[in-house]
Amino acid sequence: MQNKNKEIAQRVVKHNDGKINSVYYTACGGSLVDMYPSYYFLQAEAKNLSTGWYTSNEFDHVTPKKLGANSIVFICSHSGNTPEAVEAARIAQEKGAVTIALTFNPQAKLLNYADEKIVYEWGNELEVVNNPMAIMLDITSQILAALEDYDKLPEFADGFAKIDTIVANAVKQVQPRTKAFAQKYQNEPLFYVLGSGPTFGHTYGFAICSLMEMQWLDAAAIHSGEYFHGPFEVTDKDKPYIVMESLGRTRDLDERAIKFLNKYAAKVEVVDAKELGLDLIDSEVAEYFNPVLFYTVMCEYRAKLADIHQHSLDVRRYMGKVEY
Amino acid sequence: MQNKNKEIAQRVVKHNDGKINSVYYTACGGSLVDMYPSYYFLQAEAKNLSTGWYTSNEFDHVTPKKLGANSIVFICSHSGNTPEAVEAARIAQEKGAVTIALTFNPQAKLLNYADEKIVYEWGNELEVVNNPMAIMLDITSQILAALEDYDKLPEFADGFAKIDTIVANAVKQVQPRTKAFAQKYQNEPLFYVLGSGPTFGHTYGFAICSLMEMQWLDAAAIHSGEYFHGPFEVTDKDKPYIVMESLGRTRDLDERAIKFLNKYAAKVEVVDAKELGLDLIDSEVAEYFNPVLFYTVMCEYRAKLADIHQHSLDVRRYMGKVEY
Repeated sequence: MQNKNKEIAQRVVKHNDGKINSVYYTACGGSLVDMYPSYYFLQAEAKNLSTGWYTSNEFDHVTPKKLGANSIVFICSHSGNTPEAVEAARIAQEKGAVTIALTFNPQAKLLNYADEKIVYEWGNELEVVNNPMAIMLDITSQILAALEDYDKLPEFADGFAKIDTIVANAVKQVQPRTKAFAQKYQNEPLFYVLGSGPTFGHTYGFAICSLMEMQWLDAAAIHSGEYFHGPFEVTDKDKPYIVMESLGRTRDLDERAIKFLNKYAAKVEVVDAKELGLDLIDSEVAEYFNPVLFYTVMCEYRAKLADIHQHSLDVRRYMGKVEY
Repeated sequence: MQNKNKEIAQRVVKHNDGKINSVYYTACGGSLVDMYPSYYFLQAEAKNLSTGWYTSNEFDHVTPKKLGANSIVFICSHSGNTPEAVEAARIAQEKGAVTIALTFNPQAKLLNYADEKIVYEWGNELEVVNNPMAIMLDITSQILAALEDYDKLPEFADGFAKIDTIVANAVKQVQPRTKAFAQKYQNEPLFYVLGSGPTFGHTYGFAICSLMEMQWLDAAAIHSGEYFHGPFEVTDKDKPYIVMESLGRTRDLDERAIKFLNKYAAKVEVVDAKELGLDLIDSEVAEYFNPVLFYTVMCEYRAKLADIHQHSLDVRRYMGKVEY
């Protein structure tokens, strides 16, 4: 990845004499989703650092008492002016934390409360390494390596070097099946979306952003591990399920759900990161790249739905149109 | 609350010479939901302790590296034999953590891996202080007070002394409206359930356990703060929304959603913890009792739906009936 990310990581870990004990992630909706892989990575790999992942308005109203001069806070807002996210950055600085702000908008209000400013590129889903999700994951892994004995940075670097190619190939690979998916499911009013591990953020994101926000379809994200503890009781031949089958340690959870769905459901779309080439990345870190791959691949699924629905992905009835 | 809880807290904080740095919660489905208030409390109030909340199969497959001799791990399984939860307790002990296991079953396999064993009572929703959610919240607040300078234990004790009366009054108070709710919404195939703060676990729980598992209805939980960042685009006059309006610091988030729903939706059921008497508890801690109140009140909602649907809350088609 870029030197810029490394430099940011090296600066923020020196904050408050290098006594960093916590890394927080706060944003809203799609930006919050993009933070999940980094948050998950720290939850899994950190031996000392603690972490938190908050929708910004909750972070603003119930600011964790641990937040302070020993904290790094990531804040992301595509428009850069989401009031809750801007307020989160303000609070974080007020408490003495060092803030890393990401936005697409160089004039963002968010940047007023940013110790580190990242104005990212957008729109080319094939250069994922310029997207906020990948940038945050890169910086986060560098932070952990700087503060603890995490030693998988070479594998991460190799993963970032390969991921654009993997994603580009996957996008080509899924063209026929995404068209068939849209054809088959064009009249479905509701989808359940399953996933696990680092992918679960985008499982949720596909439900709330791609289906609910962009296609006005009913949707619910279900963790593959939780599926068997309640949600599976609604399963039948009529209900459509999309399963993001991850590569990595939680693959067993997804496979268990798929096995059940193949028996009791009839409308099941499995999107398999392994089959789409993610295993080209070293198995020590590949699982953290699942969401990077899934994000772009699932953009193809939603684009085909938008085409067949003749419902542009840009149409909103409330967001940015009415007061709320 | 009971002396037993206090004694457990006093014992576990002495584990590994009192060097506790983390408290984990792991379970599946409804038991996981019951852990959310305790997890949320630590996220909000702890200055040093870190915490995590995991569906057990993910905890088993991606065990956090921080888990070790300085960790306390809560595991809960009503049957006591949920394989993923039993395995989580085994792993926790293997890593040197001290385990607190909660179950309804005195013969539970889970108890084989329990340093502290809690066999709780069940079935009397009006004695909530005997339920695992309240027991865990009590022990957790005592753990925090023992390890840090958290000084609201008297307010917590007062809350636990009052909560059964508040809940009993609330149950009486909601009888007419729960009947009207079931009458009005008896033919709805899908519900969105909104909530925030410590309540969000039970927002999710009402969706996956009460509606999906027990009534085979489609459902999705939406965080009130996230609602405006995607999910609200499906809002219309035909879709039913249930909002758990919390007392406490995140009430603003719920009110914002309610205001919007009152304008753009037509089928909105607001369940307001304040109107139901939760403000009898000291405002320093009242918000942590929201889910305790909501759980029992929402049991009334689901019971009335079960009556009108003639679909017993105990009927399952897969859970415990087929292989999975």
